[in-house]
Order: sequence, then C-alpha cells, then structure tokens
Amino acid sequence: MAEIGVIGAGSWGTALAVVLAHNGHNVTVWSILEDEVEMLTKEHEHKDKLPGVKIPETISFTTDLKTAAAGKEMVVLAVPSPFTRSTAHNLAEFIAEGQLIVIVSKGIEESTLMIQSEIVEQEIPQADVAVMSGPSHAEEVGRGLPTTVVAGAHTKKTAEQVQTFFMNEVFRVYTSPDMLGIELGASLKNVIALAAGMADGLGYGDNTKAALITRGIKEISRLGVAMGANSETLNGLSGIGDLIVTCASRHSRNRKAGMLIGRGYTMQEAMDEVKMVVEGVYSAKAAIALAKKYDIDMPIIEQVNSVLFEDQPAKDAVMELMLRDKKAEHEDIQW
Amino acid sequence: MAEIGVIGAGSWGTALAVVLAHNGHNVTVWSILEDEVEMLTKEHEHKDKLPGVKIPETISFTTDLKTAAAGKEMVVLAVPSPFTRSTAHNLAEFIAEGQLIVIVSKGIEESTLMIQSEIVEQEIPQADVAVMSGPSHAEEVGRGLPTTVVAGAHTKKTAEQVQTFFMNEVFRVYTSPDMLGIELGASLKNVIALAAGMADGLGYGDNTKAALITRGIKEISRLGVAMGANSETLNGLSGIGDLIVTCASRHSRNRKAGMLIGRGYTMQEAMDEVKMVVEGVYSAKAAIALAKKYDIDMPIIEQVNSVLFEDQPAKDAVMELMLRDKKAEHEDIQW
Repeated sequence: MAEIGVIGAGSWGTALAVVLAHNGHNVTVWSILEDEVEMLTKEHEHKDKLPGVKIPETISFTTDLKTAAAGKEMVVLAVPSPFTRSTAHNLAEFIAEGQLIVIVSKGIEESTLMIQSEIVEQEIPQADVAVMSGPSHAEEVGRGLPTTVVAGAHTKKTAEQVQTFFMNEVFRVYTSPDMLGIELGASLKNVIALAAGMADGLGYGDNTKAALITRGIKEISRLGVAMGANSETLNGLSGIGDLIVTCASRHSRNRKAGMLIGRGYTMQEAMDEVKMVVEGVYSAKAAIALAKKYDIDMPIIEQVNSVLFEDQPAKDAVMELMLRDKKAEHEDIQW
Repeated sequence: MAEIGVIGAGSWGTALAVVLAHNGHNVTVWSILEDEVEMLTKEHEHKDKLPGVKIPETISFTTDLKTAAAGKEMVVLAVPSPFTRSTAHNLAEFIAEGQLIVIVSKGIEESTLMIQSEIVEQEIPQADVAVMSGPSHAEEVGRGLPTTVVAGAHTKKTAEQVQTFFMNEVFRVYTSPDMLGIELGASLKNVIALAAGMADGLGYGDNTKAALITRGIKEISRLGVAMGANSETLNGLSGIGDLIVTCASRHSRNRKAGMLIGRGYTMQEAMDEVKMVVEGVYSAKAAIALAKKYDIDMPIIEQVNSVLFEDQPAKDAVMELMLRDKKAEHEDIQW
C-alpha cells in the first residue's frame, strides 16, 4: 500500500484515483475548487464529471497542494493541459529529489511547442517524470470496464513502478521508454478527430473515416520519427488506439466540432455551439508549426488548418486529399 | 480506355466494375449464375447485393470466362475466397504470358495456409499477379463516398498500372511492394473483429474494443514480420484501416457472431443465427496454425480459438488477457 496524491479532480483524475484506491493505495486528491472538495468529501461521487461512479470512502480530498504532494510515493498530475505549467510551478516546492510524478494530461504548449513532460521537467527539475496514456474514456474506467494504457518513463524501473501501482484485472498497463511518442500521439490525435468529424458532417461513410484515421496516424508518425519518437508507439495504444476511441465517441468535442464544420459552420460558430474548449483547434496550430520546424509533409493536418483558419470549405479539403499525386503507401518499403 | 474483365459479380466485384466504368474503361463482368447475368443485363442494378447503385450501361455481363478474361489488359478476381482456386484453375487457359490479374478477395486457404496470390500463382503461373485491399465497404464505394485502398504487386510498374486504372477523385489508390502484408492483414482481421464483437456482447465499452483492435494488429504484425511482411503494412490501410471499418460496422457478420458469443451463444448457435459464413471462424484456425508454425505469441488469437473451439467463456478469455504478465508495449524499443 502506497501513499499517492492526485492533482486535479476532473473526470480523469477522479477515475484514476478510484483505480488506485481499489488497488489498496492511500489516495489524496487535490482540487483548486473549495466547492468541489466539499462536494466530493460529502457525496463520494463526482456528480458533474463522473456521475454514477462510487468513490471509495478511503479517498480524501484537499485544496492544499502540500497535503496532496509532499512525501507521496507517486503524484499523478491530472489538470487540464493549459494549467500544467502553473500547477507544476506551484507544486515544485513540495517535491523531493527523485520523487515520481506521472502526467496524465495531454497537449502541446502553444507558445513553446513543448510537450507536458518537458514543461514539468522545466518547472520541477528534481522530479522523476513519467507519462501515462491510452484509449481510456474516464466514464468507462470509472465503471470498471477493461481498459489498457501505456506508461512511459526515462527508466524501466520507473515505468514498472507506475505499472505496479495502477495495474489490476480491469486496468492493464504496458510500459515504454518512448515518452515523446506517447505524448505526441495523445496531443495530436485531436486534429485527426476534427478531420474525422468533418467527414461525418459531410455525410461520408466509414471508408473515409478509416482512411483519415490510418493516414492521419501515418503523418503524425512521420513527424514523431523526425523528432526522435518510435513509429511503433504512434501505432500503439496511446496513438491510434486513443484516436479510434475518440473517433468512435459521440461525446468527443473534437469530433462534434468537426461535424458542425463539415455541415458548413465556421470554426467560431462550431466552437460556440460546442460551448467548450476544442483542443484539436489548438493542436492543429501546434502540429503545423512542428511540421514546418521539422520539414515534414502532413497533408491532412494542412487541410484541417486551411479549413479552420483560411475558410477553405471542408468538401474541397477532402477533394484536395483524394486528388494528390499518386503515392506509395509507405515510401520506406522498397521494391 | 482499357479492356478490363471482372470475375465475380458479388457486391465488391460489382462496385469495382462501377468504379472502372466511371473511369472510362470497357468493363465485362463474369458471373457463374445465368440468372444473375440476366438480371444485371436487364436491370443495371444488383438488387440483392448492391441495391440503389446504378450500374453504367457500358458494362456488359457474361457467364463465359473466356469472354471476360481473354485479351483483357486487366482481370479483377473478385470471387469469394473459397472459390479462388477452382476459378483460377478454370481461368488459366485464357490468360496470356504476363497478363495482369488483380485479386480483391481475402482469405487464407485452410488446407495449405496459402494466401490468395500464392494460390493464383500456382494455378496460373504465367499471370502477373497483384492484390488490392483497404477499408472499403462495397456499398459506400458504389455510392461514390471517398475511399482509399492499397495495390500491391511484384513490380512497381504493375502496382502503378493498377493504381492508374482504378484511381479517381473518390477512389484513391496507394501502391506497395508488400503483397504478403496486404493479404495477411485482410485475411486475419476478421479474427480480431470476432474478438471485438465478443467484447461488445459482454457489454464492454470503447476502451476495450480499441485495445483489442490495437493489440490485435500488433500480434498479426508480429506474425507478418516473421513471415516476411513489413509491419508498416499491417499498420496501414489494408491492416488496421480495414479492421477499424469492420469493427465499426453494424453489418459485419464477424462482429455480429462475436457479439452473440459474448452474450453466451456457442459458436454453432451464433453461426446458425447469423445464417452466413463467418470467415473469422476459419481465419482463427489458420491464424493459430501460422502462429505455431512461426512460433509467435498471439494471445488474443489464442483466446478467440479457446472460446470458439474449447468452450472457454468469453468473459474468462478477456480476464486472461487482462491479467497476463506485466509487459512492455513494444519489446523491440530499448530503454
């Protein structure tokens, strides 16, 4: 039994806290919101974000970062990615040399093009930083449906430590050294989910969507390899696996926004209608910036950007993709 | 404009004939059934297998193999895979040295473990054999919805010839030298579709299904690489792309049979209920035979076989998969 802190009481942080408590660990969850901590302490259910999931009474809640982080054997960082830097900055003073932090939020920082682990390592250089990602709707994890994820770390020992804390009969954790690959897949998949949504909005079928998913991961993989990631990771749980879940989901904001754009909404109209942050819109910008920086051909990501920011009709974007030069599927396989 | 023959007037043969005719080619379609040829000639619609799709009047139909094959610049072989060997055998005398045959049927021959192209090359050694596959419901291709496939051949020139005949603004063809990889993905994906169906039948969610798809392709890829295929092909349109379409489809017989088994039906009861050949059941046998032959660890395929042929309850099979030893996601990526 370990002492574990979870920073962030959104749906994913809460679901992971439930997994850890079921595994017998002593879990403390931090939220910045007094109201949320009060509600969770009283109700043992996150009525807004994870309704119907019973939170074990052994889990305690706090608004005090020190209580949730200091001396813990593992700290799970689960705040929305725009708050990763500021939260890590505030967390730094409570983290000891070599203390384990597992990041489960996803996203690339727009101004720096840094991934989550780079941000946390910059703010908390003394931490031993790991990441965890995979096809994992929080609602399904909360309900105990079989789920698989991958944990990445700088050392095998750290990755296996994370695996041991989380793994049980309905939550299977694989390990990987490829932190960059895990994070790139997790962050950039939303751009492809937007494209898949556009195809749905245009009334296209499963063939088109499967093509966008498969070729979309292919181009993210090209970028990832240029940056030092392994293509197998993008073809794994945190890459295409997570993308499949996102594109199948009726709840995905990215897919929904894409669908509206496919039906003729502008980006702004779609975002107003969805009424929440559509991460894919920001990831699209980050992806195109990375494509330029590393000189990688990313036709789907380029077309998504044209539709979002240059008023290109979605239908024309699909046509541009279909009528590109005749190509080999994988240019690196030789005849 | 080329002279092209299509052997087989099922939904896929018919849809591809429509694509080729739209591209301006002179297409002759062969069926073994007099009735079918009469109906197609009169109605210009395949009312049973591709209802609602208008067949261009330029396409002609015949029950005479010689008329459909002799002297054609390309012959498309689109019969159900159990009939590939016998049809190829009868076709052989009409095929000239170096004549192009593109196989679009999928499956591994149970008694020999041969893929489609090996069978055809054995029966028609003088042919220049190519294959074509990808995420492509025939109904959607018939309706002109954007679709991508991959054409594999022994030479780049032949693959590009196939690409040129088929490609248009809604049907994008990539080329590849990896015929074995294309065929293995196409043939073995149905075993994973059965597993995904079982998960649905057990009431599991999108997380479980995405895990089965991602890890399922991973093990097919391990087998493929041992046999000489390229893992990128299994991660491409004819591998995971086609599997995504199959698992998303409400019409897939494999998924439906799996679903019934997940709900507690025996294999035989499920097959009786679906009332059609469930290819995944035969592919499961072929896959396990290949796994043994090449000494490859294929845990999902093994569990599917236990459920189908050894009365293992589907729920226990999932549990076995979740509780295997702790693993790395990709054993070939080093720390």
